[in-house]
Amino acid sequence: MGNTLSKVMTTSVENDPMRNVLGNSLGAQVMAGASVVAAVGFVLKLAQKAAKRQTPTMLFAPKGSESSKSSKVAVDGKFFNSMSKIMKTLVPSLFSPEAAYMVVVAVSMVARTYCDVWMLNNGTAIERCIITGDAIGFKTHLFKLILAMLPLSVTNNLLKYGLWELALRFRTRLTNKLYKSYLADYTYYQVSNLDNRISNADQLLTTDVLKFCDSVAELYSNIAKPLLDIVIYSRALTDNIGLQGPVVMLGYLVLSGVVLTRLRRPTGAFTVQEQRLEGEFRYVNSRLITHSEEIAFYNGNKREEITIASTFSRLVTHLRNALQFRGLIGLVDNVVAKYLATVVGFLVMSRGFLARGSGLAGAAAQSENMEAYYRAGRMLVNLAKAMGRLVLAGRELTRLAGFTNRVTDLDRVLKDLAKGKYVRTMIAADNGAGASAESSDAIALAPNSGEIVNRDHVIIFDKVPIVTPNGDVLIRSMSFAVEAGKNVLVCGPNGCGKSSLFRTLGGLWPLFGGKMTKPTKDNLFYIPQRPYLTLGTLRDQIIYPHTAAQFYAAGHTDDDLLGYLDHVHLAYIVTREGGWDTVADWADVLSGGEKQRVAMARLFYHRPQFAILDECTSAVSVDVEGFMYEHCRSELGITLFTVSHRKSLWKYHDYVLAFDGRGGYSFSAIADLDPAEHGS
Amino acid sequence: MGNTLSKVMTTSVENDPMRNVLGNSLGAQVMAGASVVAAVGFVLKLAQKAAKRQTPTMLFAPKGSESSKSSKVAVDGKFFNSMSKIMKTLVPSLFSPEAAYMVVVAVSMVARTYCDVWMLNNGTAIERCIITGDAIGFKTHLFKLILAMLPLSVTNNLLKYGLWELALRFRTRLTNKLYKSYLADYTYYQVSNLDNRISNADQLLTTDVLKFCDSVAELYSNIAKPLLDIVIYSRALTDNIGLQGPVVMLGYLVLSGVVLTRLRRPTGAFTVQEQRLEGEFRYVNSRLITHSEEIAFYNGNKREEITIASTFSRLVTHLRNALQFRGLIGLVDNVVAKYLATVVGFLVMSRGFLARGSGLAGAAAQSENMEAYYRAGRMLVNLAKAMGRLVLAGRELTRLAGFTNRVTDLDRVLKDLAKGKYVRTMIAADNGAGASAESSDAIALAPNSGEIVNRDHVIIFDKVPIVTPNGDVLIRSMSFAVEAGKNVLVCGPNGCGKSSLFRTLGGLWPLFGGKMTKPTKDNLFYIPQRPYLTLGTLRDQIIYPHTAAQFYAAGHTDDDLLGYLDHVHLAYIVTREGGWDTVADWADVLSGGEKQRVAMARLFYHRPQFAILDECTSAVSVDVEGFMYEHCRSELGITLFTVSHRKSLWKYHDYVLAFDGRGGYSFSAIADLDPAEHGS
Repeated sequence: MGNTLSKVMTTSVENDPMRNVLGNSLGAQVMAGASVVAAVGFVLKLAQKAAKRQTPTMLFAPKGSESSKSSKVAVDGKFFNSMSKIMKTLVPSLFSPEAAYMVVVAVSMVARTYCDVWMLNNGTAIERCIITGDAIGFKTHLFKLILAMLPLSVTNNLLKYGLWELALRFRTRLTNKLYKSYLADYTYYQVSNLDNRISNADQLLTTDVLKFCDSVAELYSNIAKPLLDIVIYSRALTDNIGLQGPVVMLGYLVLSGVVLTRLRRPTGAFTVQEQRLEGEFRYVNSRLITHSEEIAFYNGNKREEITIASTFSRLVTHLRNALQFRGLIGLVDNVVAKYLATVVGFLVMSRGFLARGSGLAGAAAQSENMEAYYRAGRMLVNLAKAMGRLVLAGRELTRLAGFTNRVTDLDRVLKDLAKGKYVRTMIAADNGAGASAESSDAIALAPNSGEIVNRDHVIIFDKVPIVTPNGDVLIRSMSFAVEAGKNVLVCGPNGCGKSSLFRTLGGLWPLFGGKMTKPTKDNLFYIPQRPYLTLGTLRDQIIYPHTAAQFYAAGHTDDDLLGYLDHVHLAYIVTREGGWDTVADWADVLSGGEKQRVAMARLFYHRPQFAILDECTSAVSVDVEGFMYEHCRSELGITLFTVSHRKSLWKYHDYVLAFDGRGGYSFSAIADLDPAEHGS
Repeated sequence: MGNTLSKVMTTSVENDPMRNVLGNSLGAQVMAGASVVAAVGFVLKLAQKAAKRQTPTMLFAPKGSESSKSSKVAVDGKFFNSMSKIMKTLVPSLFSPEAAYMVVVAVSMVARTYCDVWMLNNGTAIERCIITGDAIGFKTHLFKLILAMLPLSVTNNLLKYGLWELALRFRTRLTNKLYKSYLADYTYYQVSNLDNRISNADQLLTTDVLKFCDSVAELYSNIAKPLLDIVIYSRALTDNIGLQGPVVMLGYLVLSGVVLTRLRRPTGAFTVQEQRLEGEFRYVNSRLITHSEEIAFYNGNKREEITIASTFSRLVTHLRNALQFRGLIGLVDNVVAKYLATVVGFLVMSRGFLARGSGLAGAAAQSENMEAYYRAGRMLVNLAKAMGRLVLAGRELTRLAGFTNRVTDLDRVLKDLAKGKYVRTMIAADNGAGASAESSDAIALAPNSGEIVNRDHVIIFDKVPIVTPNGDVLIRSMSFAVEAGKNVLVCGPNGCGKSSLFRTLGGLWPLFGGKMTKPTKDNLFYIPQRPYLTLGTLRDQIIYPHTAAQFYAAGHTDDDLLGYLDHVHLAYIVTREGGWDTVADWADVLSGGEKQRVAMARLFYHRPQFAILDECTSAVSVDVEGFMYEHCRSELGITLFTVSHRKSLWKYHDYVLAFDGRGGYSFSAIADLDPAEHGS
């Protein structure tokens, strides 16, 4: 992409129209179309080729380079199929505002073309008046132009505004639709944690949706407008200089496009090689930085310099060869797409005029001739340009196919996840270290195969396996029962399956078998190690995930909240931060201990039947911690699962669930244990 | 940057020239220039404003957003100063090939402008012949055009080729110069490890140098060409329609540019706000992914949906307001930059012609008039375009100032580092955990203040402090002496200063005081934990950092190398990998143990006086390890510093250097220690 040579090439070719239009006569302008047709045909070919071509073996292959990413994106049946599906989201019915805006754009597009034709005719008339010295005619036509200014301007801007608004409306529709599935249940969690098909959901939901919608709206006009132009100008030209004119011109454009595309073919290989060498050069550079310490210790700088210098010199040699080749190709290109096109344009235009009469005609006939010539000539130019834009729109279509592909992928994955289907990641689980030996003899467990029963005030695991989404089995079968009021201490080494147990219990991970009895979601609370603070007011932090509206509707008051904060010695932050409605970046404003105490206040507020405390009191003083346990047990009736290594916590618990980190576990009443073990 | 609305705006404004040139008469083309002048003036203003404006307080501020990055980049004295310095590198003398290419480009630029003028005149003549029905004149002029094709083409391509070649030569010069300082001594290591001014040296050395050089070469033509055009066309126009023509036209362009720039001013605020809101929207999305697990546990999806929906709706509301504003502005813009400019163009052109005579003139006079009109008209258009391009070049200059800034920064930092000056990173040292308390009472130590003495066969630390580049003091003062033949075992907890000691010993980190006696660099070898494998042949891996040329010059043979490999039971890889000259991605091909054994063979080959083995035998069998220690001691005379926790290694060492992780250390002979401690 960031490939300069080819950029320079493309830009220079595409700029040619501009440059030539300026300095040259009408016929010369025709070449613009030819040039664009050729350039674009070439680019399309190149893209196809690059897709087909196997990436050449790299000497120093940067891992995970772009080449591996480019999955097949093509403007094919699949694309049109996806597009028509998405269009149903973008334009839900014929009576939606989107459909209305599409009509507005279509109408203003037609109006605009007719405005262009009017401007062309009026301008030519003004020129005739100037040249023939017809002051009155000049004033009349100029006055017409001045009167027409505003309507012309309105037409132009209506088209632009319609397109912008259309793109914005498309974006709103698509964004809302995708978020509806993305934020349903645990899909947003599962997209990034259970499935490996979408690696950048946020990017897709923001930037790619935006680009997709802009591209759809633009394409709508970029395809329709040139088609309309070709029809209108071809008809007008046929009236003016006969059918032969437009036919010959379009014929030359197509022919020269084909010839130039063929001629430029080798530049494809040059570009591929150039990207490869630039990639290698970047790779040896970043490699030097990655290994800079080892290299410095070895005093390897001279040796590395040789590597870098040789990589760079290979790149420069290649670039120079490519330049020379492109310089030569440019010569032919220039002649065919620019000068010969000009000659053809002049020949086409001259036919009718020269036939009419040789020698000097009368002044009146001549001025008529002139007007006819320039009118027809400008139409011919417009025809060629429309042709060029149509080919450019074809290129844009490929880009759109890419965006469509991504949006469709996201949509499909979201739907799959909603149905419980996910594609496993192939990376070894980072917390399954203790069980990696286990996982090799994979047992035949299917996700979503167990049974979940909702019942209040009890959590029962009946032969539930603890399995990561990767399929690594941490615990083959787990059984225990905890009734309300009996706190459980959970311990074991890192990666033994503690968090996996809770993810399974919380419903974040699918159940692989057995029977799990638990209260409904609202009655099961999890307080993570890093307390989560939402965006919003101070009140929102305590009542999360409730909204302020829910909070007031349930009859709660800010004084209740102050009570909860007071329990954890945090009442001062309300005054310190300026009241309950203060909005701040709370993760920054609150200290570690304050965050953990906010999480406790949140627990008091929600008063679930069960709560899991995942080492969430590490930065809190022992007395606050003690108060919390007492308060949950005696006042609030919250049963706690605590993950912690603190000895001081044993006394608040009734059971201990101990993982051995090798696939085994024990569940026992603390009272039954040897008191000496408490201290270990 | 990735800001669509403003892109749509800019593109549409910049595309106007194209679109209008097509469908309209000469006068209409003039507006192209006005439009570009206005658009660009506006963009420049906007950029200045964005630079000045303090970033508005963000509700949800994504940390480290782009706003903080934009240091002051302006086209000012500093820029021209930097540029003139860099130009000395790019064009070292008046007789360098670069200077020659600059002349080639200049000459072909002038030639090209005259070609354009010729094309313009010839084209207008052809048109006159067509209109007056002068078949012979038509053929003559068309034939001229066909004859001129090749020379015209050559001129055009010579200009392009000259520019490309110039950019490539600039890149080669600059790259070579920067690498010379970058790869001198330890600069490449220090840039990324000691200094925090340059965070992406590889990016700067590859992409940014490329962009800078392309930009310089392009700008050379983008400024010179329009200036040349303005001079040439103004002169020609003055001859054709008098001085008044070009003066009025340029006057209108400047005036309308000023008016439109002022008119568009509020769009700056719109764009800033749009970027802010798009940033917020992206931020809430990535935040959801970052915290997806906590949110899933809290069942916070509905609450987060509210946040995301409100962020999105604020964005959409703003975008819609911006669209409406821009639609209205577009109306005025269209009238002023397009239609009024057309009217002015016609008026300028009409003056001379209408004055000459009213009514219908004779046919001959009329055809003369026509030719004069179109010639002058096209020159006027070229003049307006040149003006527009000049303003565009001004914008490009700002971009160049950015690249220049970065390249200059890199150059300055490299020079500073060569002098031993570095700007400290303010981040706490990641391995200074044990000494963080120590660092608060910072002692007055300056980098590069101690004394380094080169002496063979001995390493003596005399009151050397171990200080990280951040200034964290790990050990206040360290003294020990190791003579050749006495191996030292180094132990201590993570972050105690082991690696820092070696970095100081190796010269990677500056000395902060005391006196360090050691052999020269070549006689001190370091084998890191992760063995470094270079790009190249299998032979290169063993002899690194020597080159094959050095290897043969020193009289070594591949059989010697085979012997070293055989010592570590690795001789089989030569046949397995297909010989010494095989090139492969060795980090991938070799297993962990094989890599460590390659590092040992490398040690045997180089035979330094001292070597530091940093836990580099972890994946090697005990017998190979044992052989290595015996071989180093008895055969090669290499004295070893070993960082390891393996009990089996105690017997190969004479001293133990133990860090306590709290700023203390002990250096003692192993023979003196309590034998029971060996096992601890």
